[in-house]
Amino acid sequence: MKVEGKPFRTVWMEGQGVHLINQPLLPHRFEIVVMPTHRETAEAITTMIVRGAGAIGATGAFGMAQAVLEAPDSNFHGYIAEAANTLRNTRPTAQNLFYGIRRVLEAVEREGEDLGNARAAARAAAQEVADDDARCCETIGSHGAKLIEDGYRISTHCNAGWLAFVDWGSALSPVYQAHRGGKRVKVWVDETRPRVQGGRLTAWELGQEGVEHEVVADNATGHLIRNGQVEMVIVGSDRIAANGDVANKIGTYTSALAARAAGIPFYVAAPTTTIDPECASGSLIPIECRHEDEVRFVWGWSDEGEFIRVRVTPASSRAHNPAFDVTPAELVSGIITEKGLIEANETAVRAVARY
Amino acid sequence: MKVEGKPFRTVWMEGQGVHLINQPLLPHRFEIVVMPTHRETAEAITTMIVRGAGAIGATGAFGMAQAVLEAPDSNFHGYIAEAANTLRNTRPTAQNLFYGIRRVLEAVEREGEDLGNARAAARAAAQEVADDDARCCETIGSHGAKLIEDGYRISTHCNAGWLAFVDWGSALSPVYQAHRGGKRVKVWVDETRPRVQGGRLTAWELGQEGVEHEVVADNATGHLIRNGQVEMVIVGSDRIAANGDVANKIGTYTSALAARAAGIPFYVAAPTTTIDPECASGSLIPIECRHEDEVRFVWGWSDEGEFIRVRVTPASSRAHNPAFDVTPAELVSGIITEKGLIEANETAVRAVARY
Repeated sequence: MKVEGKPFRTVWMEGQGVHLINQPLLPHRFEIVVMPTHRETAEAITTMIVRGAGAIGATGAFGMAQAVLEAPDSNFHGYIAEAANTLRNTRPTAQNLFYGIRRVLEAVEREGEDLGNARAAARAAAQEVADDDARCCETIGSHGAKLIEDGYRISTHCNAGWLAFVDWGSALSPVYQAHRGGKRVKVWVDETRPRVQGGRLTAWELGQEGVEHEVVADNATGHLIRNGQVEMVIVGSDRIAANGDVANKIGTYTSALAARAAGIPFYVAAPTTTIDPECASGSLIPIECRHEDEVRFVWGWSDEGEFIRVRVTPASSRAHNPAFDVTPAELVSGIITEKGLIEANETAVRAVARY
Repeated sequence: MKVEGKPFRTVWMEGQGVHLINQPLLPHRFEIVVMPTHRETAEAITTMIVRGAGAIGATGAFGMAQAVLEAPDSNFHGYIAEAANTLRNTRPTAQNLFYGIRRVLEAVEREGEDLGNARAAARAAAQEVADDDARCCETIGSHGAKLIEDGYRISTHCNAGWLAFVDWGSALSPVYQAHRGGKRVKVWVDETRPRVQGGRLTAWELGQEGVEHEVVADNATGHLIRNGQVEMVIVGSDRIAANGDVANKIGTYTSALAARAAGIPFYVAAPTTTIDPECASGSLIPIECRHEDEVRFVWGWSDEGEFIRVRVTPASSRAHNPAFDVTPAELVSGIITEKGLIEANETAVRAVARY
């Protein structure tokens, strides 16, 4: 997608450096940062310089490729095994991360003991993960756009736009394609506390693309749905269990409850790499708890243009910060994948899973 | 209740001045402000220096009493009619505000043309509204505390503590009384964007009273409920319709949905002054929409200790800011009033209504 007219992806590799859009600075500043080794790349995932299911997957793959390029001949396999662990431990809920790392490791294994070929294969596999993600998201958009009618008001949570992937996005790709196809759409953007990825990133993306939108406090979404001001909810996912249960950014579950109560559709848009067929149900998905200071403070730009944090709770009060929730399959109207719209049940989900 | 050991109410009158705790500065600074005339008092309601159902009701009553004291003999009735309008128009959803103003006006009417007596009656009636509110809230606490078992983890939304009333609070009064009675309780405090009354005020109140609590992003509450980490939800209300539908701070509705889905009780605690028997159902309650900048900016304290705002959305993105939602009566397990626990249906609600 384009930033002020120039095409960008969220993550790419040049030489041995992994290039990333510095997402915490958006929408206030657009900046590219370069991670010279897999360690900095892992750190960028943990600190959420890069975030979002597909973007983390591609970044994990590129980080793994970096590690393969860095690994000394004398301790090649030991080094990459340790690097794989480092990268996997950055975000415990993200299925695409594990998928991206695994594809690079498999490519390396296929080359046996030829380390030169292994290094070339790792770089190629990581690039393939990124290209595959972009292709899948574009296809998700064309499937999903068919579900959107002219004049629809769509609620979305967090950021499942192109910044969350390599390009296009999952939940927003249908919106972009419906909009480009001439349909009038309006997006209600949940701000998505604590990290405000909706208010910061989704609003910025939609603005760059010229899509009508309004930001709302997360609290407002149930009311808008109940009040007949929303025709459809579309969200992304960080992991889909084999039974169709969906892990996504904390707050997704209550939007699904409200959609069900109002009788409007609740769609999940995700590439099939998000499916974890080894995870039988959502209750088995580990839910990452992040630092309480994400709740106790809010980051933003001061009137003087500085990016700072403000405290919003008493200094002596503790906070609790689960980053994801699980929406049970029975609340999901359908999953929009690159292989088409599928039902959220075990048969349909297993049929399209990659592994 | 006490602030650092000294007893306070949220609002009181001395001479002709209405004294208020400056709530936007909490928890970072405890400051009393004095409103010299009814116009400043009205302004304090609009700008939310004072907020919360009962506190607004008492402030409206004191503001009305100020107007009666200010009114010139030559235009006594015209002046107070205009002042009543000014005060009523400050917050369109608040039932207690209308109740408080009405009680003062009725006291004035009873005195006929004796303006000296009318002024004394207005002051006494306003004081009575405040005292009545404090008494009701204390009684709500003793009824509600019976519903709380040792070890309960209770979710609450916004601030329905003593800062929202004259004393004790509605939703938090049962918590305070259970805690003082020796029961172990823990409160999950929804931060309550956009104005963060939970993170700021409820957390501060609970901390002052020594009640265990953790602040969560509003998004986390559905997850905690679904995950078996909450035994009970208690919230306050800004207006209860005759059929038992409940208007309360935006975001209440989705907590009710989550409670119902998990099979845990969802209680509303409110004095019967909150009931509007002229309002047949929740769909008739006007929902105040506040300024979009409450969503686009977050106020808090910088690391340097300054109370400032930071922008969290793109400058070019608009926001939408409904301040209340309606929870339908069928999701309400019961209403805890000063007259006891009642069912959320028309017969029970009308039986306890004040007018």
